[in-house]
Amino acid sequence: MMIVLGPNRYGKAETRLVRVTRHGDAHSLKDLNVSTALSGDMERVHLSGDNAAVLPTDSQKNTVFAFAKRYGVGAIEDFALTLAQHFVDSQEPVRHARVAIEEYAWERNGALGHAFVRSGRETRVCVAHYDGSRAWVVSGLRDLVVLNTTNSEFWGYVRDEYTTLPETRDRVLATAVEASWRHTAAGEDGDGGDWDKTYEKARQALLAAFADTYSLSLQQTLYAMGSRVLTECPGVCEVRLSLPNRHHFEVDLSPFGLANDGEVYHAADRPYGLIEGAVLRDDAPDPGPAWQ
Amino acid sequence: MMIVLGPNRYGKAETRLVRVTRHGDAHSLKDLNVSTALSGDMERVHLSGDNAAVLPTDSQKNTVFAFAKRYGVGAIEDFALTLAQHFVDSQEPVRHARVAIEEYAWERNGALGHAFVRSGRETRVCVAHYDGSRAWVVSGLRDLVVLNTTNSEFWGYVRDEYTTLPETRDRVLATAVEASWRHTAAGEDGDGGDWDKTYEKARQALLAAFADTYSLSLQQTLYAMGSRVLTECPGVCEVRLSLPNRHHFEVDLSPFGLANDGEVYHAADRPYGLIEGAVLRDDAPDPGPAWQ
Amino acid sequence: MMIVLGPNRYGKAETRLVRVTRHGDAHSLKDLNVSTALSGDMERVHLSGDNAAVLPTDSQKNTVFAFAKRYGVGAIEDFALTLAQHFVDSQEPVRHARVAIEEYAWERNGALGHAFVRSGRETRVCVAHYDGSRAWVVSGLRDLVVLNTTNSEFWGYVRDEYTTLPETRDRVLATAVEASWRHTAAGEDGDGGDWDKTYEKARQALLAAFADTYSLSLQQTLYAMGSRVLTECPGVCEVRLSLPNRHHFEVDLSPFGLANDGEVYHAADRPYGLIEGAVLRDDAPDPGPAWQ
Amino acid sequence: MMIVLGPNRYGKAETRLVRVTRHGDAHSLKDLNVSTALSGDMERVHLSGDNAAVLPTDSQKNTVFAFAKRYGVGAIEDFALTLAQHFVDSQEPVRHARVAIEEYAWERNGALGHAFVRSGRETRVCVAHYDGSRAWVVSGLRDLVVLNTTNSEFWGYVRDEYTTLPETRDRVLATAVEASWRHTAAGEDGDGGDWDKTYEKARQALLAAFADTYSLSLQQTLYAMGSRVLTECPGVCEVRLSLPNRHHFEVDLSPFGLANDGEVYHAADRPYGLIEGAVLRDDAPDPGPAWQ
Repeated sequence: MMIVLGPNRYGKAETRLVRVTRHGDAHSLKDLNVSTALSGDMERVHLSGDNAAVLPTDSQKNTVFAFAKRYGVGAIEDFALTLAQHFVDSQEPVRHARVAIEEYAWERNGALGHAFVRSGRETRVCVAHYDGSRAWVVSGLRDLVVLNTTNSEFWGYVRDEYTTLPETRDRVLATAVEASWRHTAAGEDGDGGDWDKTYEKARQALLAAFADTYSLSLQQTLYAMGSRVLTECPGVCEVRLSLPNRHHFEVDLSPFGLANDGEVYHAADRPYGLIEGAVLRDDAPDPGPAWQ
Repeated sequence: MMIVLGPNRYGKAETRLVRVTRHGDAHSLKDLNVSTALSGDMERVHLSGDNAAVLPTDSQKNTVFAFAKRYGVGAIEDFALTLAQHFVDSQEPVRHARVAIEEYAWERNGALGHAFVRSGRETRVCVAHYDGSRAWVVSGLRDLVVLNTTNSEFWGYVRDEYTTLPETRDRVLATAVEASWRHTAAGEDGDGGDWDKTYEKARQALLAAFADTYSLSLQQTLYAMGSRVLTECPGVCEVRLSLPNRHHFEVDLSPFGLANDGEVYHAADRPYGLIEGAVLRDDAPDPGPAWQ
Repeated sequence: MMIVLGPNRYGKAETRLVRVTRHGDAHSLKDLNVSTALSGDMERVHLSGDNAAVLPTDSQKNTVFAFAKRYGVGAIEDFALTLAQHFVDSQEPVRHARVAIEEYAWERNGALGHAFVRSGRETRVCVAHYDGSRAWVVSGLRDLVVLNTTNSEFWGYVRDEYTTLPETRDRVLATAVEASWRHTAAGEDGDGGDWDKTYEKARQALLAAFADTYSLSLQQTLYAMGSRVLTECPGVCEVRLSLPNRHHFEVDLSPFGLANDGEVYHAADRPYGLIEGAVLRDDAPDPGPAWQ
Repeated sequence: MMIVLGPNRYGKAETRLVRVTRHGDAHSLKDLNVSTALSGDMERVHLSGDNAAVLPTDSQKNTVFAFAKRYGVGAIEDFALTLAQHFVDSQEPVRHARVAIEEYAWERNGALGHAFVRSGRETRVCVAHYDGSRAWVVSGLRDLVVLNTTNSEFWGYVRDEYTTLPETRDRVLATAVEASWRHTAAGEDGDGGDWDKTYEKARQALLAAFADTYSLSLQQTLYAMGSRVLTECPGVCEVRLSLPNRHHFEVDLSPFGLANDGEVYHAADRPYGLIEGAVLRDDAPDPGPAWQ
């Protein structure tokens, strides 16, 4: 028996970059959390601590800051790709780079060009991979919290000996959407090259599908949300969703002589249902490392 | 030497109540986190475990749900007062009630009357006290995150032997506002009785004062924010603010041959400056238990 | 009506200091989170942004690090007092300093003198105040999580119209202890001057009182815990406790043809009971600013 | 183009189970967080909301509680396997089950048989998969926080144009270990069938390897830790590690006329290095779904 090194990567996680652009008095702001990870010829550093192939994580952090100045930060997908390509192309031992970015949304605080307020919208995310010749990009979002007060049922399910749940023809359905969508083309947005536009289309598709799907199960809603993104975004080939079922239990008020016709709910923390699934085009290309 | 019981209270914390109101297809939603705490003749339960004066925290939770049905949930201040008065007036041993509520904001998700998306705005809060005859109400907010890209300086400060900070005539100023404002009148909003309207006026005053104050120190901004609330809200007599200075450090890019003219910042986590202060009218009444 | 400045303070929060002491190969470690806050003649900085009385929070941070080198870090109470006294005594405009410290516990990782593992024990805390002539010290802990599987009852409580809770003669009682104890003497440990020894005695008193009190209510347990600390620690004059009742609900297994004789519990998150109270000597001196 | 359903699963996440066993006055305690996820013939529920193949997540939760009573909870790996097998074997449409468990450690609080205190040790975890004929088990831990005050160097790395990091021959090395180890045999512990014993051996191997490896890079330490587990635990075929480099920066005290010979450090939050890697036997069997 021999012991061998398996898949590995290393990098700098969670570099908190804020990039300000100043056009006279009208400033703009990008607020990012950038994580880089490199892999390649890393046998020696693991086996003997020889760092000759290792670009320090501190240098990776510096690169994030320097590139923000040099090239600006546009769509996070472009910034992630630029960084990933730089690391692979400039460092011989680096064969693969993964760059993940979170973006926090801000709005203007009034009319003054320098004043901002964090909007509290969902977090936008992306992951870009580059291996020296090909690139993969997955975009997405998390913490998009949605709730429907009706148009959700749950019945007709399996009843085993541990089933006590009563069927319902009307319930509150709520979730915190975590969604990722894989772009078909290698390292580019297929919808005319505008990542931001695709983001807004995908986000709007998720919101609309959640709202207007009459739901018999959260799985059905999940599939509707994924399908809607694929329909609205021709450059996207696969959508992955993770939907915690944030249970809202109708409180039994009968001990107090009160009816509760869908009015008073207890929003529970744990446990919660968790529905996860992928929806994709039948001709979607192989994902390669996109989801790693 | 004798051992005695000092100040005490007990209650149910963090009852997560969601109240839906249905007007045909147009629903509305209130999403609250309610904490109740009672005090009074509680010697016996502490000394001997005699619960004869104890209203269970489970009953307090039930009351929150039942009152949400019975009376609806309007402004959180009104709901908090109603609960506080109920506990004191209905239970002889209870001499004082404190009810604290957090409210999470939701927006409509599209045009459908039943579909909502959490807005991510700041959390609105209130605390109401009632002692059987008088009431006190403090309203507030937290996690209102604001940032100015300019119009902030910091210089002219004390330089002791541990001071290395360079002075700056232009910096990013950012904070997560935690603000509370005390209402002058006993248990009512002095601005015409509309808690929601006062909330929006106070929130807008905080945002505007942060944006338009040319700041020589975060203390100056704090005072401006508090003063603005007092000026805009005649029924408010005192404002307390806690402002973490979310440091944004200009990254030194000179090792890479790059200038950094207020463009690339590192958003630091810890440590952070923390500025706390009260701003009040000189004729503000005694706060009593309002801030407890 | 005039607007005036009320109570205020400013400082550097959460300076994460790790202090290593090296005696040959046998090293030791202190892992702290230090927050300083100063107050005094701060009218001008609030009203006009004049920083002439302001010692930058950055300098306060530097002082924490420099003092850790210069004087070492012994008991956190001593380190907090040393810092508080320095700020007041060295800065004319500073009339009052508050220093709060959290300490995280580490154990040795094996026999090697340089290897450590974080123990996961509760967090030890203290707050020291100094006003130029007097000092106040409060010590404490948080996140000491305890559970008794029996010897806890709850019955005989008030039953109002919202009470549905069944009485119980045997339940699980669990809490995450947050306790603070005030030292009688000005700025010193009254138990022979050894803060660490008093800490261990107080901690042990809390643990023992929770374990061996046959509890008819969590209030009774709270009082027993506070009393035990006072009895064991003659230099302590007051104990304050905040005890969330971490409800463990016996799961109803009867639908599955199973009994549940105190065997299977659901550990709930929210809501939770919250019991808060002070236990003190009848001759305890006035607390002054100790609890602020 | 057609839209199709990709990989999916659903279940109940984070069921907080506490299981008490009572042998006279000597009780024992298991404190778990259990997440179940099922997959199989789930086309119809996604496409049309037909729940005929869906075992409610509420029933899965009930099963966790009922099985805790019926079979007790021994090693979490056994409990996870029992649950996974039940779901697949009892439900025709379910082809695959994944059960993940976290366990929180408790110690006795004194000599009384019913009194416990949470130890704060790392969290023990496992994931079991079962597909109707084969089983896979991965065990592990997280939040095992370790620190060495010396015997760590970092030099000889790549220096590109963004590299400013000075080399060091002596630094603090700290991390929060997240480790998982895959068992070779199908659904059983290969080390004599005692999951708990293997856990303690693996944990001890991780601790010892971190302590006694003279480290030239965190990658080297990672590899040593993985190798040590494989050497000590013959039934384990692969170890995966995720090691955040919790940077401890030596504070520059020279502006204050002080030396800092490895004494005063700032423990930084973000960004942090992140080293991830697998170490395995060259004859390790195909992992199948083990790591999903």
